[in-house]
Amino acid sequence: MNKDVFAVKGNIVFTPGPEGFTLHQESYLIVERGVVREICRSLPAEYAACRVEDYGDRLIIPGFVDLHTHASQFNQRGLGLDLQLLEWLNEYTFKEEARFAARDYAAAAYQAFAAEIVRQGTTRVVVFATIHKESSELLFNILARKGIGAYVGKVNMDRNCPDDLREETEQSLRDTEEIIRRWQDHPLVKPVITPRFAPTSTEKLLRGLGALAVRYNLPVQSHLSENQAEVRWVAELFPAQAEYHKVYDSFQLFGQTPTVMAHCIYLTAEAVQHMKMAQVMAVHCPDSNLNLASGIMPVRKMLAAGVPVGLGTDIGAGQSLFMPATIVSAIQLSKLYYVMQPECKPLTLSEAFYMATKGGGRFFGAVGSFEPGYSFDALIVDDRAEHARGRSLLERLQQFIYTGNAADIAERYIAGRKITV
Amino acid sequence: MNKDVFAVKGNIVFTPGPEGFTLHQESYLIVERGVVREICRSLPAEYAACRVEDYGDRLIIPGFVDLHTHASQFNQRGLGLDLQLLEWLNEYTFKEEARFAARDYAAAAYQAFAAEIVRQGTTRVVVFATIHKESSELLFNILARKGIGAYVGKVNMDRNCPDDLREETEQSLRDTEEIIRRWQDHPLVKPVITPRFAPTSTEKLLRGLGALAVRYNLPVQSHLSENQAEVRWVAELFPAQAEYHKVYDSFQLFGQTPTVMAHCIYLTAEAVQHMKMAQVMAVHCPDSNLNLASGIMPVRKMLAAGVPVGLGTDIGAGQSLFMPATIVSAIQLSKLYYVMQPECKPLTLSEAFYMATKGGGRFFGAVGSFEPGYSFDALIVDDRAEHARGRSLLERLQQFIYTGNAADIAERYIAGRKITV
Repeated sequence: MNKDVFAVKGNIVFTPGPEGFTLHQESYLIVERGVVREICRSLPAEYAACRVEDYGDRLIIPGFVDLHTHASQFNQRGLGLDLQLLEWLNEYTFKEEARFAARDYAAAAYQAFAAEIVRQGTTRVVVFATIHKESSELLFNILARKGIGAYVGKVNMDRNCPDDLREETEQSLRDTEEIIRRWQDHPLVKPVITPRFAPTSTEKLLRGLGALAVRYNLPVQSHLSENQAEVRWVAELFPAQAEYHKVYDSFQLFGQTPTVMAHCIYLTAEAVQHMKMAQVMAVHCPDSNLNLASGIMPVRKMLAAGVPVGLGTDIGAGQSLFMPATIVSAIQLSKLYYVMQPECKPLTLSEAFYMATKGGGRFFGAVGSFEPGYSFDALIVDDRAEHARGRSLLERLQQFIYTGNAADIAERYIAGRKITV
Repeated sequence: MNKDVFAVKGNIVFTPGPEGFTLHQESYLIVERGVVREICRSLPAEYAACRVEDYGDRLIIPGFVDLHTHASQFNQRGLGLDLQLLEWLNEYTFKEEARFAARDYAAAAYQAFAAEIVRQGTTRVVVFATIHKESSELLFNILARKGIGAYVGKVNMDRNCPDDLREETEQSLRDTEEIIRRWQDHPLVKPVITPRFAPTSTEKLLRGLGALAVRYNLPVQSHLSENQAEVRWVAELFPAQAEYHKVYDSFQLFGQTPTVMAHCIYLTAEAVQHMKMAQVMAVHCPDSNLNLASGIMPVRKMLAAGVPVGLGTDIGAGQSLFMPATIVSAIQLSKLYYVMQPECKPLTLSEAFYMATKGGGRFFGAVGSFEPGYSFDALIVDDRAEHARGRSLLERLQQFIYTGNAADIAERYIAGRKITV
C-alpha cells in the first residue's frame, strides 16, 4: 500500500460551483500524495489497509483562501479606524511598515501572523509584506516552515510615500528579482509581483515589474479603484492613461499573467469588461471597505459580467483574519446593495462560500474544492454542541459560518499535511 | 469598615459622554453597595482596610448594555439568512418560538442564552421571550439566578401570526399582568411591556398593553419601521393613524413610560421629532438590518435631532451576542451612510462605545458609566498579549473592540457582584 494514501471520514461539505453545496454524509475522502482522489460512502477494497482519520459526525470543509491581506499590518489591526484613509496611512500603516526594517520586529510579527491565519482556518493566502527584502524573505520562510500555501509579495514603492519606505527604482527591481530566483520553485510559498498601487510607483518601476512578471511567468497583485480620491489621483499621475486599470495593463500587470486586484469599487463598465477578458480576479474586502469608508464593490455586477471574484480580509484595514466573518460581511453588503439596487440580488451563502474556497482558490490552481485532483486543503469543524439539536448538515455549516470561530476548528490540512496551530 | 465596600484596581476606561473616553491609569475604583463611589490614584485612608481586587495592568470598562435581543431565537442564530424576512419568519422564527410552549426546551435554550450573554460581556439586556407565560417566567428566573440586569418581555400577539402563537386577547393581558405582579419589585430582572410589533396586535390588545404600562409604570419595547413593506402593512392595518409610530403613541406605548423601539430605519422627520420630544430610545441593530436586507438607520440624523440611541444585537436576525461586534458594525454602517450622504459624519469609536454602555444604560437608570452613583457593572479585559507591544490605553481598547472576543474578558461584575460564567 502506498504510504502517501490516507482517508478522512466525516460529513463532507463543499461548493463545486457557486450555485450550491455538495454534501456527503458520513463519507470517506481518499487523499493521495496530498490530492483528493475520490469521495465514497464506504471504503473501497483497494484502500482497506490505508490509515483512516475518523472525524465521526464532524464537518469536513475546504480550507479558506484569503486573496488579499497585509501580513505587515497584523499588529495594527483595529487601530486608528476613526481616521480617514490618508491620516490612517500616515499615522499607523506607514509607521508600522517602517518597523519591518528591523529583522527581529519582522520575525515576531510574521510568526504571530502565520500562527493566527492557521488558527483561523486559512490554508492559502495572497499576502503583502513590505518593501524590505530581508524581512520579506523571513515571511516566505515562516510560511513555508508552517506549511501554509501562499503567494508572498515584497512590496515595491518608489514615490509618494515616506522617505524611509521609498525605494531606489533599480534596487527595488534587483531585490525583487533576487527573491524570485530563490523562491520561484518552492512547492507551497511562491513570489507574486506586488506594486503597492499605481500612485506609489513610477512608470519605470511599473515597467520593470511587468517585465519581471512576464519573464518569470509570475502572478501579480495590487490595489484598484478603492476610493474616489484615489481614482482621481491616478488620473493626475498617469495622464497618458484613460483609466486606472489601463495603467497596470500598459505595463503588463493586468492579466498578462494571473492577476488579483483588491477592492475594484469604482470601475467603469469598460474596466469590468477588460477584467473579464483578461480574467483578472477582483478581490472583495468588505470589512476593509467599510472601515475605510470606501464603498461597496458591486459584486453581483462583476459576477454577471464574468469577472472572477474572491474574498480578502485585508488586515489592518480589515479587522479579522477569520474568513467566515468576511463571508458574512460580503453577504451583508450585497444585501445592502440590493436594497439600493433591487436588480442586484444578494449573494447567497453558497456563492460567498465558493468565493472563499474554490473561487479564490483557482489563483493557486486546483485548490478550494474536494473534486478529484484538488489539493487536500481542509478544516475539520467540531460543532457538536450545536449539532446536538438535530440540525441538517447545511444548517450546521450556516451556524459555523455565522456564529463560529477559530475554536470550532479541530484540525487543519494543507496539501494533505496536518498543520499544527 | 463596611463590608459592602471594596475596590478594584486597574486601567479604568469609560465614556461619560459620547465625545470621548475618560482614562484613569492604574487607579482604584471604590464600590459601595454595588455602586461606584469614586475613582482615585491612591487608596484614600478611609478605605485602607477594604478588600482590593488588583487587576494590575488590565483594562476595567463598563459592562455592555444590549437594548434589543430575542432570547427565544438563541438557537436559530445564523440560520436561514438567505431567506427574505417573511420566509425567514415562517420557516425559522415562528417554528422556533412555538417550541417554547415546552418547558424543557425553553429551560435549556434560556440557560444557554443567559450563560452566553454573560460570557460575551453583556451585563444588562432588554429582551424578548415568547408569548408563553410559563417559559417567559423561566427566563426571568434564569436571568435573576445568574445575576444579570434585565428587562424581560413576555411577547403579546393576537393576530397575523401562526395559530400556535396567536393568543386570545384577554388571556394575553391577564398573563402579562400576572407576570408583572410577580416581578415588578425584583431588584435586577423586571418586566417590560412587549407587543411584538403593531401588525401582530389588535387595537384592543395594544390598548390593554398601554393601560398596563401606565398603571404599573412599566417600560415598553417593540419594533418600529424596520422595512418598507412593514411600514406599508401598518398603514393598511391601522388606517386611522397617519404614521406607524402614532399607532403605538395612540395606545400609550410611545414614551408615556420609558420606551425602546428597535430599528427605526424609515422614519419621517416628524416621527424623529416625536421620538425626541417623548425621549423614546431608538435601538440600532446593524447586523440584523444587514442580514434581513432592511437598510441603514440614519443614526447621525437621530443623534443630531436629540433622539437617544442605543445598540442591540437582535439575535437571531443578528448573528452575534458580542456587543463589541455590534459597535464595529454600527461604525461601519455609519461610514457607508457617510459615503452616500457626506453631511452625516461617521460615528466615532467613543460615540458607539457610549451607545453600548451609558447611552443604552440610561434605560436602566444610572448604568453604563463609572461616574459616582452608577451601578458597578464592569468587565475586566485581559489583553496583556496585545499590550506587550507598548500600546496606549486607548489603542488597547480599540484593539479589544475590533479584534477581541469573549475569551479576552477575565471577569464580569453586575451591580457590584462578580458573576461566574
